[in-house]
Amino acid sequence: MKCLSDIGEDALIQRLVRLVPRDPSPAAGPGDDCAVIDPGPGHDRLQLLKTDALVEHIHFLPDAPPRAVGWKAAARVVSDFAAMGGHPERFLITLALPPLTPVTWAEDLYRGIGDCLKRFGGVLAGGETTSVPAHSAAVISIAATGSVRRPHLTLRSTAQPGQALLVTGSLGGSRAAKHLTFHPRLKETAWLVSNFKPRAMMDLSDGLGRDLPRLAAASACGYELDWGVLPVTEGCTMEQALGDGEDYEILLAVADGEDEALVAAWGREFPDLALTRVGRLVAAGTGDRLQGGWEHFSNP
Amino acid sequence: MKCLSDIGEDALIQRLVRLVPRDPSPAAGPGDDCAVIDPGPGHDRLQLLKTDALVEHIHFLPDAPPRAVGWKAAARVVSDFAAMGGHPERFLITLALPPLTPVTWAEDLYRGIGDCLKRFGGVLAGGETTSVPAHSAAVISIAATGSVRRPHLTLRSTAQPGQALLVTGSLGGSRAAKHLTFHPRLKETAWLVSNFKPRAMMDLSDGLGRDLPRLAAASACGYELDWGVLPVTEGCTMEQALGDGEDYEILLAVADGEDEALVAAWGREFPDLALTRVGRLVAAGTGDRLQGGWEHFSNP
Repeated sequence: MKCLSDIGEDALIQRLVRLVPRDPSPAAGPGDDCAVIDPGPGHDRLQLLKTDALVEHIHFLPDAPPRAVGWKAAARVVSDFAAMGGHPERFLITLALPPLTPVTWAEDLYRGIGDCLKRFGGVLAGGETTSVPAHSAAVISIAATGSVRRPHLTLRSTAQPGQALLVTGSLGGSRAAKHLTFHPRLKETAWLVSNFKPRAMMDLSDGLGRDLPRLAAASACGYELDWGVLPVTEGCTMEQALGDGEDYEILLAVADGEDEALVAAWGREFPDLALTRVGRLVAAGTGDRLQGGWEHFSNP
Repeated sequence: MKCLSDIGEDALIQRLVRLVPRDPSPAAGPGDDCAVIDPGPGHDRLQLLKTDALVEHIHFLPDAPPRAVGWKAAARVVSDFAAMGGHPERFLITLALPPLTPVTWAEDLYRGIGDCLKRFGGVLAGGETTSVPAHSAAVISIAATGSVRRPHLTLRSTAQPGQALLVTGSLGGSRAAKHLTFHPRLKETAWLVSNFKPRAMMDLSDGLGRDLPRLAAASACGYELDWGVLPVTEGCTMEQALGDGEDYEILLAVADGEDEALVAAWGREFPDLALTRVGRLVAAGTGDRLQGGWEHFSNP
């Protein structure tokens, strides 16, 4: 009998979504960073929906500071809203914890969520606490609503061959440190969609080696990387840059020729954060082929 | 050091929600069945938000049919929308499962969710799958949006002393059978809010012994039960009726004197489902005191 580790996350999701009623005309593909709800032509803002879970031992270790775990749980969701050109609004927080979890652990987790909401916006709208059996992994599941101005909505499925590919920051090394303390690129994407017109965008949660093929596939493109200029975090290998995952940087496509003006303006606006042209989109079936990145159900 | 089982779910939530930014003017209290978002005076419909999780060993046993578990996971959420006078719209489904879970188990779970959505409305808008460590409990977390017509919104915090208390169906025995197959009272509450004016409403998820005190406290009331007429499921004791939980029946308050007309009309509309006047609300600090019901973190 096949089990989840035999087929992996993407194939599993494809099999599952066929089994339930779906939105007949979704405003974004089922694989995008957020679901997009169009309230109708009279509305300037579209609603964004997102859910994301952290699991003990998988996304954080038992001895991780709970305040940092809370920050991470909320920041991952903020990052997904940022990747659509939007911002977060209301959060629903589900804690599934063993009965012997210290109250102070849960409180510090919430403080970390609060740190993130105070910094990036969004309020608690509701939630739930439930027990899991002793010795089961703790699960923190956060669902949230957000919104995006209609002209700012940026999908991952709308890139075209010839467009330039850029990434913010540097890639790799997240597991060593950054994955609990990263800053979602909300301010940066708000500036991007207000001042330029990204043709596609997503956040790098599973590593460029896994996420770039996703963006390209969603847009029916191939891709070519300029390997020599890839912004690899100092002390990391190329393999780590492609495969560590949890960079939470932004991958975006812009029209060919627009990238130079963008990089120049970015440098003035965000002098402390790199924006690097790392390659370009090409016709489907051509270009490079990346492997690696984080795979649920089969990684150790 | 205090742990979660020392303080219980309600006290935990009270401590946690103080630690994060909250909606400064929520349209419903933090303890109601759903969060209520008011999009502004020009809109006839309010948005409802809900999240709910099922945990293996806690809410279902490992040998429970996955299709029934899926039904239950979605039906609990539908029940919460019903309890506000609204209906479900978009679902976000999070599966946190061990890597050796059979693919067919996850597929049957989704089929059960699909059964419920086809029956009660709502579409899949997104979701996530993630692994939990081997031997950790499976967690199914469902977040959903819904909506309610402004005049139909019914909170649990708006009852007043003197009003009649009624419950649908019969109470107790859910753990033996019904908890996996119950039908959320969506059709019934839609009829209720269209034809009568319930003054307060909630669904009975943790047992009348625990949920009635919650409704009364949210409304700053006490309560008196007519013990002799309580609709106890055949074969169950009074203790089970008060304490089993997971009845997913509706508890409502109506104006004193309106209950007779309501019960008569209900009998014509829903001849196969009882609606019973079980007591009344009284001044805070007076009346009965119930105990029992399901308590996360301290039940075995």
